[in-house]
Amino acid sequence: MPRYSEDEIIARVFAPIAGAAALGLKDDAALLAPQSAALVVTTDMIVAGVHFFADDAPGLIAKKALRVNLSDLAAKGAAPIGFLLSLALPGDWTNDWLDAFAAGLAEDARAYGAPLIGGDTGATPGPLTIAITALGRAERFVPRSGAKPGDAIFVSGPIGDAALGLAVRRDVALAKRLSAEARDHLIGRYLLPQPRLDLSGWLAANASAAMDISDGLAGDLAKLCRASSVTATIDLSCVPLSDAAQAAIAIDPALFETAITGGDDYEILVACGNGAVLPAPARRIGEIVAGEAPPIFLDAHRKPVFFKKLSFQHF
Amino acid sequence: MPRYSEDEIIARVFAPIAGAAALGLKDDAALLAPQSAALVVTTDMIVAGVHFFADDAPGLIAKKALRVNLSDLAAKGAAPIGFLLSLALPGDWTNDWLDAFAAGLAEDARAYGAPLIGGDTGATPGPLTIAITALGRAERFVPRSGAKPGDAIFVSGPIGDAALGLAVRRDVALAKRLSAEARDHLIGRYLLPQPRLDLSGWLAANASAAMDISDGLAGDLAKLCRASSVTATIDLSCVPLSDAAQAAIAIDPALFETAITGGDDYEILVACGNGAVLPAPARRIGEIVAGEAPPIFLDAHRKPVFFKKLSFQHF
Repeated sequence: MPRYSEDEIIARVFAPIAGAAALGLKDDAALLAPQSAALVVTTDMIVAGVHFFADDAPGLIAKKALRVNLSDLAAKGAAPIGFLLSLALPGDWTNDWLDAFAAGLAEDARAYGAPLIGGDTGATPGPLTIAITALGRAERFVPRSGAKPGDAIFVSGPIGDAALGLAVRRDVALAKRLSAEARDHLIGRYLLPQPRLDLSGWLAANASAAMDISDGLAGDLAKLCRASSVTATIDLSCVPLSDAAQAAIAIDPALFETAITGGDDYEILVACGNGAVLPAPARRIGEIVAGEAPPIFLDAHRKPVFFKKLSFQHF
Repeated sequence: MPRYSEDEIIARVFAPIAGAAALGLKDDAALLAPQSAALVVTTDMIVAGVHFFADDAPGLIAKKALRVNLSDLAAKGAAPIGFLLSLALPGDWTNDWLDAFAAGLAEDARAYGAPLIGGDTGATPGPLTIAITALGRAERFVPRSGAKPGDAIFVSGPIGDAALGLAVRRDVALAKRLSAEARDHLIGRYLLPQPRLDLSGWLAANASAAMDISDGLAGDLAKLCRASSVTATIDLSCVPLSDAAQAAIAIDPALFETAITGGDDYEILVACGNGAVLPAPARRIGEIVAGEAPPIFLDAHRKPVFFKKLSFQHF
């Protein structure tokens, strides 16, 4: 099968997704006009066999790579300016695969107002590897470090779906005991995070601290508390769970821990004071408390719950 | 051997290299103040076995990854603001390797005034993969597309050393026929590009077009001409060659084509008018000419020289 040359990849596959700052992908760098707002920059790399399955649909892989970055912008109260894509293609890539990858990327670039502004495409003897750097602008940067005792803690939506979706993909027995609808919902949430850019403005105006939940609620909350030199009390019974997540946990109660400590939620963890209330489907799940001890998780009987590990770690 | 945890990699290995915008690498994103100058953003990914050898010294790998990006900033007339690092570590990484990698990175971050402002570290089942995104500010962005008929064409320094250094590494017979000094010079220029940030200010003030020469002088000149809708005449006898490059070409005259079309020079190709003269060791090598045909390369007898391929292509 004939394949695109390097120049064709740039001119035919990626230039159509490019914004003005990309200069048609015909220069060495992107050019952004002087910025009157604070600039927010984030980068995330995803690797086949680690962050996704090599045979996942190419459009979904592209969207996931972009969305995990947009999720960081959202959590910081920023609106997207654009993104740069570094793509290392394994030996067996095809034009069809690349076209579908670019089509998925184009859909999201349009949907989220985040044009491609630069990149680099090369070959790898290893697995498909995608690094995206996203830039955004924020009227106010929402730090991890601003949480204060007395702040309410919210999550922007259901927790655990993605980690359970991964469990469903790995555990055929579990998958068989779930309805097709529940299975599809959980797997869909693993494949395709929903960056909460709809909340950027609210967060910039109201949040004292925020972060996106990428490595598990429990561990990411501990990080936010450490950054803010505070601790927290969480009512686990208030943590929102989708119907599908509840169905999975009803089958195997140990999956509750998977939901609370597993990664890939890409909902936002928010601390805010002064009676601010994050709009539904967000839920208030606890409170920031003075102190430096690890956060406390309480069950419905207000008994502390301890987890084997708080979050996903690569190493 | 015990290895750093993911949190230790961030806190102990990379946080010491971080600039203020990194927020101690304790947040989801970097925060840059509003920018009064144009913002220049570039990204390059390098992969073991493609862009470098897996057993190259880790500090040199780190420096090469950063410098290829700083070279793009230099060519655009920009001064560095900082960079983001995405690092995918293969299974066999060690703390010693990572410490040496970070030490090399720290040296260059200091030397070039380009602090680490964010990043992402993860695991890969494949080869070491490094994606860096560098940000800079430019009083004037120097495009590829601004070359005008009558402009002089300069290169900022010797051409071909890096491509010949790669040839020396691959060809033991050639290596044996060179002096140790010539061999070390060529291999050194392959391992460690010298980003010409010293020229940023001059380029912003004087260049009508510029790009860094990463894929070979001949091919990159063709790209600059296409972007500017012009062509060029090059006097090959004016192209500066190091003593070591001349020694290699004296052994095997076919290596002259390697020098002119091989990659990894990271010198800057410049078009400028109005009698502007790029300071030594830069050399004037030709002239921009009206027309859309490919550039013409003339030998010392003003006869056209044709190359088998103009530049390195991954695909």
